[in-house]
Amino acid sequence: MDNDKQPYVPEPAIGRLPWYLACISKMRADGVEYVSSTAISNQLNVDSSQIAKDLSYLNIKGKTRIGYDVRQLEEGLNDFLGFHRRHNAVMIGVGSLGRALITDSGLQRYGLNIVAGFDVDPAKVGTSIEGIPVCALGELASMKEKLKAEIAIIAVPANKAAEVARICTDAGIKALWNFTPFHIKASEDVTIQNTSIYAHLAVMYNRMKDKQA
Amino acid sequence: MDNDKQPYVPEPAIGRLPWYLACISKMRADGVEYVSSTAISNQLNVDSSQIAKDLSYLNIKGKTRIGYDVRQLEEGLNDFLGFHRRHNAVMIGVGSLGRALITDSGLQRYGLNIVAGFDVDPAKVGTSIEGIPVCALGELASMKEKLKAEIAIIAVPANKAAEVARICTDAGIKALWNFTPFHIKASEDVTIQNTSIYAHLAVMYNRMKDKQA
Repeated sequence: MDNDKQPYVPEPAIGRLPWYLACISKMRADGVEYVSSTAISNQLNVDSSQIAKDLSYLNIKGKTRIGYDVRQLEEGLNDFLGFHRRHNAVMIGVGSLGRALITDSGLQRYGLNIVAGFDVDPAKVGTSIEGIPVCALGELASMKEKLKAEIAIIAVPANKAAEVARICTDAGIKALWNFTPFHIKASEDVTIQNTSIYAHLAVMYNRMKDKQA
Repeated sequence: MDNDKQPYVPEPAIGRLPWYLACISKMRADGVEYVSSTAISNQLNVDSSQIAKDLSYLNIKGKTRIGYDVRQLEEGLNDFLGFHRRHNAVMIGVGSLGRALITDSGLQRYGLNIVAGFDVDPAKVGTSIEGIPVCALGELASMKEKLKAEIAIIAVPANKAAEVARICTDAGIKALWNFTPFHIKASEDVTIQNTSIYAHLAVMYNRMKDKQA
């Protein structure tokens, strides 16, 4: 698939594609060769018509009465989602969460290549975590080019998130993956992905209460 | 605040409350005593009218020309969000991501108390991670009551997610925090919170491409 000619896919659809990929990969491992949107729907909480529509954005179409070719579909989804490309990233903040994310090999499998950590704690600077060097945050701007870092993962305390985001964008990093519950503002050319796992916790706690009531 | 009489708050609003909390906590640490929704709005990507509306769901109202009492607001948000209560949880799957989440002390700070890990790998069963014992997945049902586990955190390979979710709900666990990209189905009385960090990666990669184009 030619990157420059990738179709526009709405964000909710993009968010569902990895579910289909996980489902399809399991089927491929189980030896399934063809699959219908109905069969995928049976595994997930998604209508088969929605699945067919989402996949049609990618120009992936099933054959009547046969369905989708499982290998082609898996390949097409991985390509479209960017999981087959390497994206260099730096980890800003190597406290508990940052360290945890560096040790998660799943990120590597999905194309994220963490090349360095940065921290302000002198006790951490100069150490390494699973072979990833930890540098002083002040060095980020000068090291960014050499590291070819496209993405900064922000795993600092929430009250440092705004300041750290500014340091990253000043260094020329155009994508911030924000794990703090702080809602970062940046200019329009910067991609911000919020993954506040603590905010998800709050939503879960709240729905648990509603169901118990 | 009386739990039984908690107001109904729409999910998008709940998702924003932790941002306000992070912002307010920083202000309180900085010695601010009163804050307006406009001042909060200046820190976040949210309209001040939206902030005032979200907070009014919690029956928190600011005073004209003075604003919100920062300490009361922080307390009210923490209480409402359940971050001040302990919620016992088990970690299903202590591979790379599960182990990483166990080591993240941030979860503890937001009320999540991981009491045990479960895995099918005999090499892991009987070990412990940061003092948390790792047990055989087959023991979950018999141990659930003793552990007082309300939540199962699912951090297994995506192709095991459906099976593991069934084991958890069969054991009587009513809340699943799903970190796999697999979209779990369960009966209506089960709360499912999907936090597929790999799906977020896909959305971020995609938006990065759009901005480069």
